[in-house]
Parts: sequence; structure tokens; C-alpha cells
Amino acid sequence: MINRLAIVGVGLIGGSLALALKQAGAVGHVAGCGRNQKNLDKAVQLGVIDSYEESISDAVKGADIVVLAVPLGAMQSVFVQIKDVIGDATVITDVGSAKQSVVDIASANLGPRIGQFVPGHPIAGTEKSGVEAGFASLYQNRRVILTPLDSTDPAAIATIDAMWRQCGASVEYLGVGHHDKVLAATSHLPHMLAYALVNYLSRLNDHEEIFNYAAGGFRDFTRIASSDPVMWRDVCISNGDALLTLIEGYKNELDQVSAAIRDADHEHLLQLFGKAKSERDSLIGL
Amino acid sequence: MINRLAIVGVGLIGGSLALALKQAGAVGHVAGCGRNQKNLDKAVQLGVIDSYEESISDAVKGADIVVLAVPLGAMQSVFVQIKDVIGDATVITDVGSAKQSVVDIASANLGPRIGQFVPGHPIAGTEKSGVEAGFASLYQNRRVILTPLDSTDPAAIATIDAMWRQCGASVEYLGVGHHDKVLAATSHLPHMLAYALVNYLSRLNDHEEIFNYAAGGFRDFTRIASSDPVMWRDVCISNGDALLTLIEGYKNELDQVSAAIRDADHEHLLQLFGKAKSERDSLIGL
Repeated sequence: MINRLAIVGVGLIGGSLALALKQAGAVGHVAGCGRNQKNLDKAVQLGVIDSYEESISDAVKGADIVVLAVPLGAMQSVFVQIKDVIGDATVITDVGSAKQSVVDIASANLGPRIGQFVPGHPIAGTEKSGVEAGFASLYQNRRVILTPLDSTDPAAIATIDAMWRQCGASVEYLGVGHHDKVLAATSHLPHMLAYALVNYLSRLNDHEEIFNYAAGGFRDFTRIASSDPVMWRDVCISNGDALLTLIEGYKNELDQVSAAIRDADHEHLLQLFGKAKSERDSLIGL
Repeated sequence: MINRLAIVGVGLIGGSLALALKQAGAVGHVAGCGRNQKNLDKAVQLGVIDSYEESISDAVKGADIVVLAVPLGAMQSVFVQIKDVIGDATVITDVGSAKQSVVDIASANLGPRIGQFVPGHPIAGTEKSGVEAGFASLYQNRRVILTPLDSTDPAAIATIDAMWRQCGASVEYLGVGHHDKVLAATSHLPHMLAYALVNYLSRLNDHEEIFNYAAGGFRDFTRIASSDPVMWRDVCISNGDALLTLIEGYKNELDQVSAAIRDADHEHLLQLFGKAKSERDSLIGL
């Protein structure tokens, strides 16, 4: 049982975590904290949090677990505000989509308390953002990746592991760098591709007509382009090197497609699309 | 009422059309034709078609409407087989995703009967293929684009227009070249991007792990990479110039993202993602 949970950043991810833990009967009091008071009022109204504090230090005081669910670009400021008020028994975790940058910030700020910090990343979300978009089942049957350091307290890891399992998630472990490389490929790159596609088409002369004739495939394909711009800006800043490498590699892949089209190379086109289809079908488990 | 409908190519698109017209009580006998007898047997079993013929000429004889629902690469062969057996009262249409190539083939083969051909393209489908994937509501509230020529018989256009409306679709009209340009952007380019992404990731060293951690966003994003490789090979061959231009333009768009990441240009990244989000949100009508 978590007696007091502090959620710093009460949006889709932090809010859904609170709802899931409440539904599981796994938490007592949930204290929220954030920059937007209207959002926090709404979070109380919706029963996502029980109270909120204006200062982060008040919110985290006495908490069993502090969850940092702010965009990556806000982590430095948040760690500075919590570092001197964290109690001995408090475990800190985060939900950032890139882990190296958060680990660096945590290490620089927490000093001897670094063992109390368990870096985490739930592989879940929707293209929506804000506490109204939260729901208790968001983490059901989803994976949460924890990337603890050698110095992380095993008891702290166990606490965060149990917290996510109580939300219906499975918990897996990856090294920090490994996480960032894998997620750059499966998540960060696709988001860049979707954002770029929408922007590119919107620049074309007849873009209104183009969007007008967009079919279901296009809507699914660009769904992630509706994701929170601040979050993704910060992911780009935090995991830029991995992303840059992948974007270059992806452009080379597109060049292969272009070459096959230019040469009207029936066999190569069929092979490219056939390979992609079989990979994707097996991924989905058809 | 369509007394006899001939469907050449009984897959997802042709099969769903037959099912929709039957459900609407708008068709008498549906005759199928295709290269794969097992598939045709299945189509009869499923009630999609009432009979099938081994030769295309037998299938189209006496038909009110002939629907060509084969991949674009098979159009030349199909037009050669039907050109001498088409009756005066038969209207021909197709469902190809690119229209110029079909119009060229039809013009070269049909001679004075070109007025009986109404080029068409239902903006509907799923990533699945084959007659088993067909369903009667596929065209409900979807758009069908017709791209008639100056020489197309207005009565033939009215016949095909009415056929699609009876399936629950709305019918719109575009010029042939305009259609191909718009669809290259909304449909052909996204398919290339999805195929290329799956192929690219599958080439990476740790691709098994990468696919293992793929989240919902990735699944949606790559759904269209499960589409029929033959169909998409043929689209590339048929609409290659438009596609090549768009792929190059898209790569330039990616370069903008890369430059902003490389420069850690917070403002530019936020502007790029914010613009894409607002375009996409308004497209979806949020």
C-alpha cells in the first residue's frame, strides 16, 4: 500500500497512473503538483488527485513515492526543487520517454540519494494529453521499462516494480543507453516521420484538397502527429543523437524505394513490400 | 437494378462491392472471374458471387456493369481480353488507386467503346486482402472518386455513380491527373513511408528487441505496411513520377527536423510539432 503518492505533472500519464492505483486500492492519498492551477482543480474534480500543493517541495514531503511525469525539459528544474526535501524512505521515479538525460540530471542533483531514484518509462499513452485524457486502464497489459543504475536501491526498484504491476502493466528491465536506442527506433523516429508528413503535405499547394481526400490509412498513420509538441521537442533534445542517426538511415531506406520506382524495378519493389508486410504481420502476430 | 454484374478480381475491394450491392438489393446475378480458382470457390461459398467463369470474356458477356478490381499491373491483360466482347449496353469501371495508367490502357484498347469506361477509385480498404477480408459496409460513408474523360458517356457515369451510392458511398469527381497527384500525397506516399520504416527497423541489429518494444503508436503507424505488395508495386509503377517528387520533398522535410534536432533549436522543434498537431487535429475535426 502506498500511503502517500506525489504526482508532479498531472497529465495523461501521471493522471492515469493515479486512477489505476486508486482503482486497484493500492494508494491512500494522492497529492498533485503542476504549473497550471486550472488543470490541478480539474484533476481534483475528476478524482484523479486528492489534493494539490503549489510548491513541489510541499507535494513530495512525506510521500512514499514521487512520480515525475513532467516533460523531459522540466526535469532539471524539478530535481532542483525536490533534492533537499526528499525523505529517507521516499522513492522517486519518472516516466520520461528518454532515460539518459533524466539519469544525468538525477545523478547531478540527488547526490547520495541517487539510490532512491528508479528511472522508468511506461510504453503507453495516446495522442491526447492533459488530465481529462487520463483513464485507469491505460497501463493494462502494457509494458513498463525500468532502467535502474548499479547504485539504485533494490528495495526502491521493488517498490516501483510493484506499483506498475498493480496498474496491470508488465515490468521489464533495460540498460539506460539500450532503452534510448530501442525507443528511438520504435517510438521517437515514427513520431518524427508522422509530424514531418503532416507538415510536408500542409505545405503543398493543394493541401486542403489533399487532406480532404485522406482515407483511414492516412488518419491512422498520422495519429501520433497529434501528440504533445512540448513532450516531443524535449524527447528530440534529450535523445537527439540516436534520432539523427535513425533519420539518416531511414532516408537511405527511402532512397532504395525511390531507386526501385525510378527503375520500374518490379521485382525489387515486390521484394521490399513483401518483406515489410511479412515483418509487420509477424509483429502483430497474424 | 443491375441485372448482371461482372467482377474481375474478387478480392477485398471487388468482393465488398458485391456484398454491399447484394445487401442493398441492387443487383441480380454477380459473376466473378479471377486467376485463382480456390479463391473463386471461396467467394461463391461466402455468397459474395453467384457464379464464376474461367474466361473473362464469358464473365463479362451480357453484364450491365463490369468492375475491374485487379491490381493495376493486370489491367492491360484484362482490357485486351474484354475489348471485343463488351456489349453496347455494358458499362465498365475500375477501382485502381492510380488513374492515368488505366485511362491510357483503356483508351488504347477500347477504341470507339472508350465512352463506356468510367474510371473510378473508392477511397476505402483495409490492410487486409482477399475475398475473406471483404464486408458489405466497407464503402459506407466513404468517398469514391470518379475521373471520367470528356468522351465518357454521361449515362455510363450516372450508372457507376448510382452503383457506388447504393453501397453507402459519396461520389466525387476529379480530373485524372489531379486524382493521381492528390492520392500520391494522401495514400501512396504514406504507404511508402510505412513500408520503408518496417524494412529499415528490420535491418537494425537489435530488430527483434525493437519490434518487441513497439507500442500502440507504432502498430497504427505501420498498419498500412501490411497492405498487399502486388497492389503497391503496381501503384509505384503506375504513379511513379508523382511519388518520386513527393518522396524527395518529404526527405527535405525530414532534413528540417534533423537540422532543428542537431542545433537543439527548441523553438523550431516546438513550431514544427505544434503546426503538425494543429493541422492533424483540424483534419480529424477535433
